[in-house]
Amino acid sequence: MTITSHSPQQEILRVSTGSNPTAVAGAVAGAIRNHGTAHVQVVGAGALNQAVKAVAIAQGYLEDGELELICVPHFADIEIDGEARTAIRLDVEDRQHRLPGHHSNL
Amino acid sequence: MTITSHSPQQEILRVSTGSNPTAVAGAVAGAIRNHGTAHVQVVGAGALNQAVKAVAIAQGYLEDGELELICVPHFADIEIDGEARTAIRLDVEDRQHRLPGHHSNL
Repeated sequence: MTITSHSPQQEILRVSTGSNPTAVAGAVAGAIRNHGTAHVQVVGAGALNQAVKAVAIAQGYLEDGELELICVPHFADIEIDGEARTAIRLDVEDRQHRLPGHHSNL
Repeated sequence: MTITSHSPQQEILRVSTGSNPTAVAGAVAGAIRNHGTAHVQVVGAGALNQAVKAVAIAQGYLEDGELELICVPHFADIEIDGEARTAIRLDVEDRQHRLPGHHSNL
């Protein structure tokens, strides 16, 4: 797993086949606690598998009876070593854009 | 891709490595049009890859400027040929539980 600074506020979590889903889940939960969202990027089936497992695990880490983690998948054209590749980006966040510990009172 | 009747109202889409993401996307879009949600089940990285691609493609099929397809991933314990396996279930639906063509007027 590589964490790349995307902006001063938000990073992209680049997950690979060899990434540990538990470690990625911790990073996802941390990004959601800090920013309300996690941007995960993968290339290939093995990497996507680790990323989706991580989201299911992160749901447990953030469990407080309120948050519901969802993924919004997008295709992304990227370049690796000068070659065009199609990555999958998963934007992970609470369904209602809530932050952990900041429950809305609707 | 196998479609298994889960209840009279709703089916589970069982996606495999060999499934065509475009065909799965059509089935996902159809389930969302009819029921507001699609239940996709996969075992293994290749199958998950086809399923997530299908969700990204289905977003385009349902594009009307309103719907935003999201996935909620869960682990599911299933049995295949008498062997215990861990599947991943993706519940796919609009972020605000909207149906295509049925926009809420909040």
